Amino acid sequence: MARLLTSEGIRHAVYLNEEWHHIDDPFAPVPTFLGPVTSAGKATLLAPTCPAVIVGIGHNDGNHPLPIQPWLKSVHTVASPNDVIEPPRRVGSVNVEGELAVVIGKSAVDLTAENALDHVLGYTIANDVTNATQAVIDERLFQAKSGTHYTPLGPWIETDIEDPGNLGIDVTVNGRAEARSGTFNLISGVVESLVHVTKWMVLEPGDVVMTGAPGTIVEVRPGDTVAITIDGIGTLVNAVA
Amino acid sequence: MARLLTSEGIRHAVYLNEEWHHIDDPFAPVPTFLGPVTSAGKATLLAPTCPAVIVGIGHNDGNHPLPIQPWLKSVHTVASPNDVIEPPRRVGSVNVEGELAVVIGKSAVDLTAENALDHVLGYTIANDVTNATQAVIDERLFQAKSGTHYTPLGPWIETDIEDPGNLGIDVTVNGRAEARSGTFNLISGVVESLVHVTKWMVLEPGDVVMTGAPGTIVEVRPGDTVAITIDGIGTLVNAVA
Repeated sequence: MARLLTSEGIRHAVYLNEEWHHIDDPFAPVPTFLGPVTSAGKATLLAPTCPAVIVGIGHNDGNHPLPIQPWLKSVHTVASPNDVIEPPRRVGSVNVEGELAVVIGKSAVDLTAENALDHVLGYTIANDVTNATQAVIDERLFQAKSGTHYTPLGPWIETDIEDPGNLGIDVTVNGRAEARSGTFNLISGVVESLVHVTKWMVLEPGDVVMTGAPGTIVEVRPGDTVAITIDGIGTLVNAVA
Repeated sequence: MARLLTSEGIRHAVYLNEEWHHIDDPFAPVPTFLGPVTSAGKATLLAPTCPAVIVGIGHNDGNHPLPIQPWLKSVHTVASPNDVIEPPRRVGSVNVEGELAVVIGKSAVDLTAENALDHVLGYTIANDVTNATQAVIDERLFQAKSGTHYTPLGPWIETDIEDPGNLGIDVTVNGRAEARSGTFNLISGVVESLVHVTKWMVLEPGDVVMTGAPGTIVEVRPGDTVAITIDGIGTLVNAVA
């Protein structure tokens, strides 16, 4: 499922037979097809969701004791595939973080291990861009995580993943492999993270939970091009200004 | 300026001669009047803005060294006047915090002391409800600040405040005065806070910056009714479930 920029405006669409078929409400139990189709080669892909809330799952990489530590990221940071990440000048080190992102499909409160995945629409890729130097002095991550285009999402939402806990994640910079890991290295899986988050906060359709970086943090420099690939989803590419 | 629930749906309105005059875009330089009017006594007031981002200004009460420490609160916590605050069971102590809230009127990036107030639509009252016991164990404030109806806003946006740094704030619980202070006790004023926040993060029209609690934190118990009054704005009333 994707969000496309078309000559008629922004449209949600599902992928069938190498074409994007425009649909009405992406959260409907069954999509209503609107008729128009965009061929895969001609589609301009936008961030596949417009979350009201973006939750990051901190301390989920095995280097910290449990429990995980959720935090919030500004929705103004959301960027589309190929948008250029814009670090402020004199910000210090900037990292990219390749992460599996959960897209919520149904209002979620007090989820249980049994029903958590029923509230997931699907999965996409998040690049949780971070001002690493600022994170050291800002424990609440405000000045570390709030920059322009600091949360690329995409290229689409994969709705057919059975086991989100066993997906490889690769990060390349300028075509060179810089990190290789996967969601199997996260301490708290998708189900556990959703149960924890919704114990404290409601999640609504379209909201995003970034599951944490399992050794997929890479420092970048001006002009770099970053590609994050997650098995079974695809590749998210963004340059750094 | 207010947001009203009317029989025709939700409407923005401005107050003139004891009536709410419905308007189109609340962020337009000059409001366009739609014609209909709601008398003050019959108006159902909603939270006066639907922010995409809510920023809290932490460490702004004189008990911490500068700099201030901004953080983000889920927009799903926004509540209207008279909505009931719903703490989770077994959450420990719950505090209300009476705060001046800035409502942004124009996109704001890298504001300066000279232009910051030009980007303000006006001011309202925020009740920054907090699970105090959880805040001790959750430095990023996720499980402390994310509950249902944990951010009452209202009753309206006052657009005619000249000096936001000199407003008294009173908090009463069940009619009894529990705290009396004012924005004059904040270390970082509205201008300084907006300059700091927009150095790191863009703010958009409708976004809310809660300026911090200058000694206006009061513990509440189930069934309490909380009233926060800010001079020159009004009174925001919410009960605790």
